[in-house]
Amino acid sequence: MTPQNPSFADEIRRSFDGQAAMTLIGASLSRVDPGIIKITLPYRANLTQQHGYIHAGIVTSIVDTACGYAAYSLMPAGSEVLSVEFKVNLLRPAKGKSFLARAEVIKPGRTLTVVRGDVFGIDESGQKELVATMLATMMCLRKD
Amino acid sequence: MTPQNPSFADEIRRSFDGQAAMTLIGASLSRVDPGIIKITLPYRANLTQQHGYIHAGIVTSIVDTACGYAAYSLMPAGSEVLSVEFKVNLLRPAKGKSFLARAEVIKPGRTLTVVRGDVFGIDESGQKELVATMLATMMCLRKD
Amino acid sequence: MTPQNPSFADEIRRSFDGQAAMTLIGASLSRVDPGIIKITLPYRANLTQQHGYIHAGIVTSIVDTACGYAAYSLMPAGSEVLSVEFKVNLLRPAKGKSFLARAEVIKPGRTLTVVRGDVFGIDESGQKELVATMLATMMCLRKD
Amino acid sequence: MTPQNPSFADEIRRSFDGQAAMTLIGASLSRVDPGIIKITLPYRANLTQQHGYIHAGIVTSIVDTACGYAAYSLMPAGSEVLSVEFKVNLLRPAKGKSFLARAEVIKPGRTLTVVRGDVFGIDESGQKELVATMLATMMCLRKD
Repeated sequence: MTPQNPSFADEIRRSFDGQAAMTLIGASLSRVDPGIIKITLPYRANLTQQHGYIHAGIVTSIVDTACGYAAYSLMPAGSEVLSVEFKVNLLRPAKGKSFLARAEVIKPGRTLTVVRGDVFGIDESGQKELVATMLATMMCLRKD
Repeated sequence: MTPQNPSFADEIRRSFDGQAAMTLIGASLSRVDPGIIKITLPYRANLTQQHGYIHAGIVTSIVDTACGYAAYSLMPAGSEVLSVEFKVNLLRPAKGKSFLARAEVIKPGRTLTVVRGDVFGIDESGQKELVATMLATMMCLRKD
Repeated sequence: MTPQNPSFADEIRRSFDGQAAMTLIGASLSRVDPGIIKITLPYRANLTQQHGYIHAGIVTSIVDTACGYAAYSLMPAGSEVLSVEFKVNLLRPAKGKSFLARAEVIKPGRTLTVVRGDVFGIDESGQKELVATMLATMMCLRKD
Repeated sequence: MTPQNPSFADEIRRSFDGQAAMTLIGASLSRVDPGIIKITLPYRANLTQQHGYIHAGIVTSIVDTACGYAAYSLMPAGSEVLSVEFKVNLLRPAKGKSFLARAEVIKPGRTLTVVRGDVFGIDESGQKELVATMLATMMCLRKD
């Protein structure tokens, strides 16, 4: 997929750094490509729910962010991206030493872009297991 | 709706207190009734996304938690509740002095319970505005 | 909710009559109000799945149509409505002598409108039971 | 993925033939493999909505059926499959000479199975275009 905004990667990195919620939970951008974004989250005990797994809302936070930027990477310069809606299926308990959210645009569009995102739990030995999957609609807002 | 577990309210309060992620973001339980749960979240700058609104994942965190406990309140003693999946429509920017997630069971079931949740932003004057709505499936796990 | 298009009701009735799929399954419009639409579907054996209940896709057909027109009723003259996405929870087997889909706009918008829809099964004695619920996003396309 | 029920393919074909709704719309099973199902639907004018495209509910009918049998193909003998919920993103107008729904299990489970489904429109020249994508939860009911 071809980006319309030549400086999309810089803008995504700058925007990500401005997301206080990503800083709070300790997430970082690990891949920025046209239509594809990866975000990494190390396990932290303060992100868990009552059974000791990462909270579904925190899992959602990283994959929603990844989906948003995946859509944004294909939008024209001067746009803003907005999450319209997403659905998340929680496939397994979110356990692991770290977590990887990977988002990929399925259908870019002038106004709406549809993105699929997966979250993997990664154990000590580097083994990945799919823990959640998202199907999301993102919207392009033109500032002008 | 009639609870099967007479001590559901105590168990929900204890369970909520055990959710590190809820402590991290500053959320608190504000209503615990059979089939209905409310959670309150004061605005904090460290919960925001790049435009200064509360991150969609944080909004999801409180309404998913509310939906889970709303389902749990109607489950038999000795059960555990698990989020199977949820869909969230983000209706307006999540701005406000505080936020209220309200969840209500639409259809309780032996194995699966369907719950609707709304999140309101509340401004200085106490005015409420719907910012997101969730439709979720929760699962009952029997420990025995 | 206030309609922007004074002839919305006539246009919805005309548009509905042009939906061959609605004719095929025997559905009819039973209420057209600003932001609220009802569609009725009598039981027919040729609409069933393998267990003899109305097929989930047919249930979806009537509630998607109702949600689309509920959104359309609030759009300006000269618009077209498009289903962006929907999620359906199937709460009970779709059994009954007839079925009622009821859609109501939760959040109208210039481009996107969010609509909730419920489908009820109605038995011989007129008793209604909720069999499915939809949460949908509809888009306004301006012809000009 | 390994089927538990050696006669799953025969049972799926027999069950599909018992779906009156599939007969009504003219759909047929075109592939039955463990965890993967394809259903084909030729274009018919009586399946359309007001703009002449195949109705979103009909699109949903074929992909929900495909997702259900993809899940069923991995269930033990003597089970029944039930659609719990699905979300559909409608990516492009459903136009074509015929339509192909392809479903694949993402995560099989004892009680719940998560399935992804895609619907393609196929034109005169055999060119395929993705028109919709589904993310669905299916439930296994054991008869005994």
